[in-house]
Amino acid sequence: MKTARLEAFSDGVFAIAITLLVIEIKVPEDTHDLAHKLLELWPSYLGYTISFLVIGLVWANHHAMFDHIAVADRMLLFLNTLLLLLVALIPFTAGVLASALRNGESERTAVVLYGVVLVAGGFPFNAIWEYARRDHRLLGPTITPKEAQAISRRFLLGPVLYGIGTALGALLPVLGIITFALLIPFYWLPPLLTRSRRGVAASDRPD
Amino acid sequence: MKTARLEAFSDGVFAIAITLLVIEIKVPEDTHDLAHKLLELWPSYLGYTISFLVIGLVWANHHAMFDHIAVADRMLLFLNTLLLLLVALIPFTAGVLASALRNGESERTAVVLYGVVLVAGGFPFNAIWEYARRDHRLLGPTITPKEAQAISRRFLLGPVLYGIGTALGALLPVLGIITFALLIPFYWLPPLLTRSRRGVAASDRPD
Amino acid sequence: MKTARLEAFSDGVFAIAITLLVIEIKVPEDTHDLAHKLLELWPSYLGYTISFLVIGLVWANHHAMFDHIAVADRMLLFLNTLLLLLVALIPFTAGVLASALRNGESERTAVVLYGVVLVAGGFPFNAIWEYARRDHRLLGPTITPKEAQAISRRFLLGPVLYGIGTALGALLPVLGIITFALLIPFYWLPPLLTRSRRGVAASDRPD
Amino acid sequence: MKTARLEAFSDGVFAIAITLLVIEIKVPEDTHDLAHKLLELWPSYLGYTISFLVIGLVWANHHAMFDHIAVADRMLLFLNTLLLLLVALIPFTAGVLASALRNGESERTAVVLYGVVLVAGGFPFNAIWEYARRDHRLLGPTITPKEAQAISRRFLLGPVLYGIGTALGALLPVLGIITFALLIPFYWLPPLLTRSRRGVAASDRPD
Repeated sequence: MKTARLEAFSDGVFAIAITLLVIEIKVPEDTHDLAHKLLELWPSYLGYTISFLVIGLVWANHHAMFDHIAVADRMLLFLNTLLLLLVALIPFTAGVLASALRNGESERTAVVLYGVVLVAGGFPFNAIWEYARRDHRLLGPTITPKEAQAISRRFLLGPVLYGIGTALGALLPVLGIITFALLIPFYWLPPLLTRSRRGVAASDRPD
Repeated sequence: MKTARLEAFSDGVFAIAITLLVIEIKVPEDTHDLAHKLLELWPSYLGYTISFLVIGLVWANHHAMFDHIAVADRMLLFLNTLLLLLVALIPFTAGVLASALRNGESERTAVVLYGVVLVAGGFPFNAIWEYARRDHRLLGPTITPKEAQAISRRFLLGPVLYGIGTALGALLPVLGIITFALLIPFYWLPPLLTRSRRGVAASDRPD
Repeated sequence: MKTARLEAFSDGVFAIAITLLVIEIKVPEDTHDLAHKLLELWPSYLGYTISFLVIGLVWANHHAMFDHIAVADRMLLFLNTLLLLLVALIPFTAGVLASALRNGESERTAVVLYGVVLVAGGFPFNAIWEYARRDHRLLGPTITPKEAQAISRRFLLGPVLYGIGTALGALLPVLGIITFALLIPFYWLPPLLTRSRRGVAASDRPD
Repeated sequence: MKTARLEAFSDGVFAIAITLLVIEIKVPEDTHDLAHKLLELWPSYLGYTISFLVIGLVWANHHAMFDHIAVADRMLLFLNTLLLLLVALIPFTAGVLASALRNGESERTAVVLYGVVLVAGGFPFNAIWEYARRDHRLLGPTITPKEAQAISRRFLLGPVLYGIGTALGALLPVLGIITFALLIPFYWLPPLLTRSRRGVAASDRPD
């Protein structure tokens, strides 16, 4: 089974989940002193921005992963559906986070919920990659087993880091949010990634 | 007519229907004692999870089906639109189910409605396959008539099993929900499918 | 400019508009006597079904049209955007129609609004085809000018028929709804279309 | 990395953002004197129409841009995500604009917010192009550096013009709206663009 439709379907779910984030920013019905009302919505903007960049990041990593996965089977479709199930929950957890920040109440619970869903999403994400790369089963010739293992290590780091963010958020909500925000550039920044990838490539293909 | 755009359009509808499920989980406006309020939303999580996996499953089967359908005609587009019409209703029936479970009122009606839409969806789904495989009309060379018939039997089982779930749900709502939930791994699990498909392939191509 | 991305973008808008129809069927918050409450939602089901099949139909015709359009230019993108603008309005007009039928008030206005948007959509739809086929400018070799003209006639009939439905709806709302419903099988039914297309093909290519 | 999935994902986000605009036009629950109620929604129609054409325009320009971008890297994905983040905000700012116009209150704030998001979107849009064309890094052979520079100038003009519209809107809201509306045909109209592009092509390739 080719991966084209799996990618198209996943792109669709990612695109919808990321765009649905906007409907959690409620348009004020009453526009008296609108500037003030818009400023009060800052928790929604914060939740929107972090969540948009996080989903965009998961999409980019999904993209990178499926660049190397050549064929799909039924189990891969299932694991991918579990991943999408958790990604599609983010507009809800982002909404809860914004709601708690706006009310200044139960921020701890909201940050933990937000982090738990991110950590949980790491499980099917890593399961896809581990399942695909076992015995190089579903991988194509664009990658060596050693490179696949290096990517593995980087992917497995994800839920650990989000778990640390969640734990920090359980101590002090704002710390959790800052951690989630800082992980975005850490994972997006291309130089770091390129360097580590090149390092692997160099040690792997010495010619 | 090629099936590429039909598949892209269907992927879009599947992806949107599956992602829209999340907007039936309402973000609590009042976040006082948020943990408790979030726990009270369990019927929404249940409806979300079952419906996500069911739609994902229908998508996976749609994918498997169109792997063998080589050309489309106007009638196929029409039958496919009827299927999508019923799939796109699931966020509504899932919302009704969650609403009834939350209120502890009219669960029977909600479960039956949920099941009836699943059963109804089985009709256009099977109609697509029967229409495409009659005289091998729209099928490609990737499948033999005998294999197509074996798939037929498995597909026809779907609405029967969902019908049993609906009937059980009419007796005792929780039984219906359990049946719907159990059908998900039954249909997703790859070993079962692979085995039955191999059986067919073996009896079909004896060399 | 190739038409691939124009088709993908249009497929996306069609898929979203068609799936968004479901959010106009409001889930009852209060589930006491749910069966009765669900039955009272019949105008929403009616609006959903007609609108789903109409948008599906416009999509199928868009598909048929772009099977013959080989290249796109800026003007074509613009006309296509106008078409999508009107298609994406249908969830709104379907919601208004259901609302008026539910209240038993202002059905005339609602039916006329619904019809006017369908008629209006016929203008950019036909403009796309007329623009593309002038001097065979954007058409590919899959179609002769005479065949293109025959399709033209059939496409131009669309807004006329929807206009008649709208006028009948202005006299008696239920008549308008029946007309819109009847136009669906008339346009979807493949035998009629195949026959007329074959007729053209026969007279065009006498060998 | 190829640009196919980046384009598919972007098409998805554009398609969803453009179609979500319709859910800011609220269906009247009470349909007494519906015609009058529908007329009162004119600010929503205005916001819908302008925003639909603006997003469609950004999509068309994105399309034109990626016709020449042959490869993607991590940084390009990131810049593109920032662009989508701002595009997906438009249903919110369009809703705020319609709300303010309906209430006849705080129109200035709403117009400025609307314009600021458009101007802000110009930054990642231009960053994508500047990043891709530096040393012809990510561009394909379909374009010369000089042509890329000419496109640059036209793209850079966008945020300047929207900035002028925003400034005018800060003086007199209606002026801002008129400016945004006038920019649509200015940027969509194919003759102007074709002429300028041809001019460049002529001076670039003298044979």
